[in-house]
Amino acid sequence: MQEAQFISLLWLIGILAEAMTGALSAGKKQMDLFGVVIIGCATAIGGGTLRDMLLGNYPLVWVENVHYLIAIAGASLLTVIIAPVMRYLSKLFLAIDALGLAVFSIIGAQKTLALGFSPVVAIVMGVVTGVFGGVIRDILCNQVPLIFQKELYAIISLMTAALYILLQHLGITEWVNLAISLGFGFGFRILAIKYHWSMPTFDYQYSSGH
Amino acid sequence: MQEAQFISLLWLIGILAEAMTGALSAGKKQMDLFGVVIIGCATAIGGGTLRDMLLGNYPLVWVENVHYLIAIAGASLLTVIIAPVMRYLSKLFLAIDALGLAVFSIIGAQKTLALGFSPVVAIVMGVVTGVFGGVIRDILCNQVPLIFQKELYAIISLMTAALYILLQHLGITEWVNLAISLGFGFGFRILAIKYHWSMPTFDYQYSSGH
Amino acid sequence: MQEAQFISLLWLIGILAEAMTGALSAGKKQMDLFGVVIIGCATAIGGGTLRDMLLGNYPLVWVENVHYLIAIAGASLLTVIIAPVMRYLSKLFLAIDALGLAVFSIIGAQKTLALGFSPVVAIVMGVVTGVFGGVIRDILCNQVPLIFQKELYAIISLMTAALYILLQHLGITEWVNLAISLGFGFGFRILAIKYHWSMPTFDYQYSSGH
Repeated sequence: MQEAQFISLLWLIGILAEAMTGALSAGKKQMDLFGVVIIGCATAIGGGTLRDMLLGNYPLVWVENVHYLIAIAGASLLTVIIAPVMRYLSKLFLAIDALGLAVFSIIGAQKTLALGFSPVVAIVMGVVTGVFGGVIRDILCNQVPLIFQKELYAIISLMTAALYILLQHLGITEWVNLAISLGFGFGFRILAIKYHWSMPTFDYQYSSGH
Repeated sequence: MQEAQFISLLWLIGILAEAMTGALSAGKKQMDLFGVVIIGCATAIGGGTLRDMLLGNYPLVWVENVHYLIAIAGASLLTVIIAPVMRYLSKLFLAIDALGLAVFSIIGAQKTLALGFSPVVAIVMGVVTGVFGGVIRDILCNQVPLIFQKELYAIISLMTAALYILLQHLGITEWVNLAISLGFGFGFRILAIKYHWSMPTFDYQYSSGH
Repeated sequence: MQEAQFISLLWLIGILAEAMTGALSAGKKQMDLFGVVIIGCATAIGGGTLRDMLLGNYPLVWVENVHYLIAIAGASLLTVIIAPVMRYLSKLFLAIDALGLAVFSIIGAQKTLALGFSPVVAIVMGVVTGVFGGVIRDILCNQVPLIFQKELYAIISLMTAALYILLQHLGITEWVNLAISLGFGFGFRILAIKYHWSMPTFDYQYSSGH
């Protein structure tokens, strides 16, 4: 297996897991099966879609390979069936979600660099790819995006993308780079969950009447 | 009148009717006249706009023919004036809305096929065109999109787009295809409203603390 | 200093001020520092980004010049530090915000005309540039967009863009046009705040059961 295949495989696992977490969010809002599929799709591929729309990079991945979309829809519907079991799998899902965050952030950075954009843009697009699926999910479910309020999530996405780009600049071979960057992002996220790490919050309740 | 003109006429009726339902939603949130126009426009052309942005298909319809936008803005403002009468027209509007759903779904599929994309992408874009105007309206009005929770709506859009593409593949002439597809989508939607058909709902209230 | 430099300088002041008002909105929702940066960025450049995505005008300004994004992120974080002082600066911010509204509307119209689109599209894109940063901010903060409900805001954006285009058509020199258009937009907005001007509201509480 080559690096590109390896990361593609992780990506596939990641989008399917994201679809399932999206489906659960839809279930919390008592959506119907179609809503479940839409929220599952938006969660899984919303981040990458927004990245490519911001970069003007067409056709979109899921437009060119519509099989991904069908797989995501299937994973969303599967979630409805296996929902009673999913509470026992919550730790597994947190782990896959943590891996997905690292994978999406790295892929977002990779694709942006491959299009000839600067490293800073690549980091930004790593974050867009890593976290905006969840943001779109929360907007569609009519709640303040979780990642803006709780949990060390987006900053891990940013640091993972930055680390990957840095190691690439240093000439580290791709396999080693992937091992380090994925390990960093995954490990950091797991530790953040375990020890309830979070960023400082900005609480500004002054009302100016404006 | 040719097929293309016929469907264009139905499309124009559809977007004007959607603008008016959007304006009513804005009125439920006590928006000002500008908000009414924005919500009316977003409801009427949001679905088609999102479709073309996802496909990278520029220029957008209303950017190239800005008269549509002016007509939509006018229909939105007209709604404010005739609002007291609109409650007596609610059945008419449900009928136009049902027709619009079928028309938008078919047009979305047609345009996507014409751009050379696959039938599955065309079905997806039929749904995007058919239902995302309402989704954007609900997001701007800060409520969970109706179509994710109630009413058989999005699935009718999907089936209408799929039926149209299937009949086209089977070599059915365009007029007959339009008659069957429009009749199917319109009739299905009217029956769904009349008999309160809805899809199974996914209710998942388990909180994992995540 | 030339016209283009002058308006660019005002634009820079405008996006930094918008970033700071976005950061305060994030603070009202107790977001973490990353949420503050995202909301700050979305408020500052969301309108121009949406305009360019609607027009298919790539690469986006902040993708090509990522320094703007870094400056905006910095202004957002600075807001957290100087928040205790900001209540004393609220009048200054209302003034900068009023100036920003006029500047964004004019720039949006300028850029759209420069791409060869019609004056009506340019006015629409002036409004998109002027007000949709605030709309995206409110969607991300899960509230009904302010500009749809209160304050004379969007209509001033529209009139400023229209006035600028009209004066340009009349052959007024750019400096004089900018002075008049900016003065009009800024002055109108300040007066609207001072005298609590607002547009008529559309209140439609009839529920059709639909």
